[in-house]
Amino acid sequence: MATKTTRSSKHDSAGGRKAVGVDADRKDRNLRRLRRIEGQVRGLQKMVEEDRYCADIMTQIASVHEALRAVGRELMRNHLKHCATSAIRSGAGDADAMYDELVDMMYKHSR
Amino acid sequence: MATKTTRSSKHDSAGGRKAVGVDADRKDRNLRRLRRIEGQVRGLQKMVEEDRYCADIMTQIASVHEALRAVGRELMRNHLKHCATSAIRSGAGDADAMYDELVDMMYKHSR
Amino acid sequence: MATKTTRSSKHDSAGGRKAVGVDADRKDRNLRRLRRIEGQVRGLQKMVEEDRYCADIMTQIASVHEALRAVGRELMRNHLKHCATSAIRSGAGDADAMYDELVDMMYKHSR
Amino acid sequence: MATKTTRSSKHDSAGGRKAVGVDADRKDRNLRRLRRIEGQVRGLQKMVEEDRYCADIMTQIASVHEALRAVGRELMRNHLKHCATSAIRSGAGDADAMYDELVDMMYKHSR
Repeated sequence: MATKTTRSSKHDSAGGRKAVGVDADRKDRNLRRLRRIEGQVRGLQKMVEEDRYCADIMTQIASVHEALRAVGRELMRNHLKHCATSAIRSGAGDADAMYDELVDMMYKHSR
Repeated sequence: MATKTTRSSKHDSAGGRKAVGVDADRKDRNLRRLRRIEGQVRGLQKMVEEDRYCADIMTQIASVHEALRAVGRELMRNHLKHCATSAIRSGAGDADAMYDELVDMMYKHSR
Repeated sequence: MATKTTRSSKHDSAGGRKAVGVDADRKDRNLRRLRRIEGQVRGLQKMVEEDRYCADIMTQIASVHEALRAVGRELMRNHLKHCATSAIRSGAGDADAMYDELVDMMYKHSR
Repeated sequence: MATKTTRSSKHDSAGGRKAVGVDADRKDRNLRRLRRIEGQVRGLQKMVEEDRYCADIMTQIASVHEALRAVGRELMRNHLKHCATSAIRSGAGDADAMYDELVDMMYKHSR
């Protein structure tokens, strides 16, 4: 999948696929979320180092899962508005590839 | 839940609940996993900053979820062997509280 | 949500919202899957009645979850191709409502 | 796993593994839940036959997932109290097999 390119993504010089459009406020929110998640993961390391009670660590892990899902939600919303819409409006071939990708993302992400 | 204490957990001077036993090799594996997860989360920040393609970011998020579950698995295995076993062998009252806690952990963690 | 109607759904006389298009082969596959799931659920009743071993029942429950996800996948694929595409092509208002609905479906279904 | 037997399960004449103990009220609750789930699955068949709107069918699927988890929760609670406790109290070998089985059930069921 990493090498597939549709009109809804484009490559930069470094070879990574790019989004066709990103809303600035969504991007800011996601960066803030990811910095908070980084802090939570360092907190988890400290809890494991200190032999903290397992149920308390598991509660913290569940909270990281939840925070990651909030990032995914924001990304998906942006993806649908920009990349998916661009593919779906451009016509049948790109649209079909996009439907398959979206269903895969839904079920890969749900894990 | 954070204030409940059974014989299967004990408090240190800082007030955090402690595990009754932690296998050294499990602890090492989990610390290594959590340091790798921290790196993955920083990688996610970079991807968002660079407006990378949403499906590629989602793939990376799915991989962090998977890595967190591996940490949870290791913790649960240790918890059952030490804390849960200690509570279950000690008798009816502690055992009942432990069953409830384990079922909660299962379903909280599965999210 | 049950009362919201966009151009991508229509009501019949009984008041239930309808899909704008359904591929016949997808529909057949899903009906076959759902009849198989009904049989699995009756099998679960029999296992519980016979006091079968919990781990064996849980394995069967996991298999029903998996089969339901296969139904959901097929539905989503059809939804994107017909209803979502119709809304997204029709313009900004309907498209925005559809994006929100899709993200909700992703995350509601992932539970 | 289906053929492994510990002291915490026993076989009947038909070869299926049995639980070592089942609380009558938990069993009744689970049978009622499973009959309701069977009705929900038949409702899903009707919705698919009538080409109902995808988001409405997905909402119903999510509700079946949730109902199945309630069955699993009840089963796990019973399993911990009877089968797991019996294995854990009986000693090291059976206890170790039980820990592994419990962790597998947690993570298989979480899918």
